[in-house]
Amino acid sequence: MERLKKVSLREKFVSFNELWQPKTVALVDDFAVKLVKIEGEFVWHRHADADEIFFVIAGGIRMQYRSDGEEYEEAFGPGELLRVPRGVEHLPVALPGTELVLFERADLVNTGDVENERRSAPISAKT
Amino acid sequence: MERLKKVSLREKFVSFNELWQPKTVALVDDFAVKLVKIEGEFVWHRHADADEIFFVIAGGIRMQYRSDGEEYEEAFGPGELLRVPRGVEHLPVALPGTELVLFERADLVNTGDVENERRSAPISAKT
Repeated sequence: MERLKKVSLREKFVSFNELWQPKTVALVDDFAVKLVKIEGEFVWHRHADADEIFFVIAGGIRMQYRSDGEEYEEAFGPGELLRVPRGVEHLPVALPGTELVLFERADLVNTGDVENERRSAPISAKT
Repeated sequence: MERLKKVSLREKFVSFNELWQPKTVALVDDFAVKLVKIEGEFVWHRHADADEIFFVIAGGIRMQYRSDGEEYEEAFGPGELLRVPRGVEHLPVALPGTELVLFERADLVNTGDVENERRSAPISAKT
């Protein structure tokens, strides 16, 4: 077996600048911890059969979402997380410099049911 | 649908004092984000069919583990995580005041294959 090696989130975050492209840093069974930098408005989308957790490291997010024909939002910042259940249409809007940890299925595509220029399948972070 | 509500890790951590008892704060499909306070030495154990991720918020951990008859260790602190793959026998040893986020299967029992007085099935954190 290979030796176990810790992962520094700070080191990983400084290793890339691309926005909206989740990088997988660790797998847990078929789930993953992914890091992503985001800012501004993403695109409305939903994941029909997967929950998602957004955990803010830096910056902040205003998560807009739709439920029963109404639109709501929840804002959260460093040290706070938000779970978006499967099927819920949502739109993350982020402050400049937002750094985020995602907990979700390893193969989840960021834009869910939407084909968009920001579509990005998860890739591995540089080691 | 219920409204989405952010979770503050700090608020959750100040809501309990028990050691070695993981509290589930958010579910992602059948996986979970759990918070736990630990200090000192746990017990050697393994999870035959489940990976585990340990992410340190405060304090620090020296993770001892066994591989191919040898014993190794990896130390990590705040902002760092360690993945322990399924089947690997491990022993967390933690500084006083260590606060930890676990990302793992929702139904995972902390002591794995070992029956011990520290055995604790995951329970929900106070809301």
